Amino acid sequence: MAACIFCKIIKGEIPSMKLFESEKIFAFLDISPLSKGHSLIIPKYHGAKLHDIPDDQLHEILPVAKKIAIAVGAEDYNILQNNGRIAHQLVDHVHFHMIPKPNDTEGLGIGWPAEPADKAQLSKLLEEIKAKM
Amino acid sequence: MAACIFCKIIKGEIPSMKLFESEKIFAFLDISPLSKGHSLIIPKYHGAKLHDIPDDQLHEILPVAKKIAIAVGAEDYNILQNNGRIAHQLVDHVHFHMIPKPNDTEGLGIGWPAEPADKAQLSKLLEEIKAKM
Ligand SMILES: [Zn+2]
Ligand SMILES: [Zn+2]
Repeated sequence: MAACIFCKIIKGEIPSMKLFESEKIFAFLDISPLSKGHSLIIPKYHGAKLHDIPDDQLHEILPVAKKIAIAVGAEDYNILQNNGRIAHQLVDHVHFHMIPKPNDTEGLGIGWPAEPADKAQLSKLLEEIKAKM
Repeated sequence: MAACIFCKIIKGEIPSMKLFESEKIFAFLDISPLSKGHSLIIPKYHGAKLHDIPDDQLHEILPVAKKIAIAVGAEDYNILQNNGRIAHQLVDHVHFHMIPKPNDTEGLGIGWPAEPADKAQLSKLLEEIKAKM
């Protein structure tokens, strides 16, 4: 993907605050951090959304996120990966955020509009989803 | 962990809307969903936070989240894993949310209090983190 900013970062065509690189993974500091240590972990494989990435390109993502969280010294943090503009995705190359949550104001803000659960509807949905797996 | 509700769900001591189970992973519908298809993917290994879970127990998490997102038919969605009460973690057994984002009101709400970036500070932080990796 010639125009993809993250592909360019991986290739070194755009400089980045690189934290880690392996055969399949690249990680760097977010330059517009929500908190100190906010990092991005990405597969080198280009794909816009999680479901576009082959499984074997995903195995190392969470171990690397964990490694960075430990190095940052984050006790409280969020791991977030957004798919689609409406879900707050801004760059169309899959990326995982590791966002330390040092206090109420810094880090990720979360809105949790839980719906009243309808057990019968959930059971029906469960069967529908399982039939597609 | 005798008192852990997710360990009890894994053992079948508490019923759940089970979507998937393998040697290392368990997945089920969230019974207080933020949107239709909101699911939880958890390692069977008990640990409160991501950095408590061995790498080999994490490899399959994202492939399973992806598999469920595809089965649900979610185009736009968020993958979220919270560490610590302040980061919105309510159950102290690592869990990944797959939350479809069908529209502005349903699904995850995201607050993004980005800070002005200070390049020199970021470069210094980068070296500090890398020294610990
Ligand atoms: Zn790309
Ligand atoms: Zn547990």
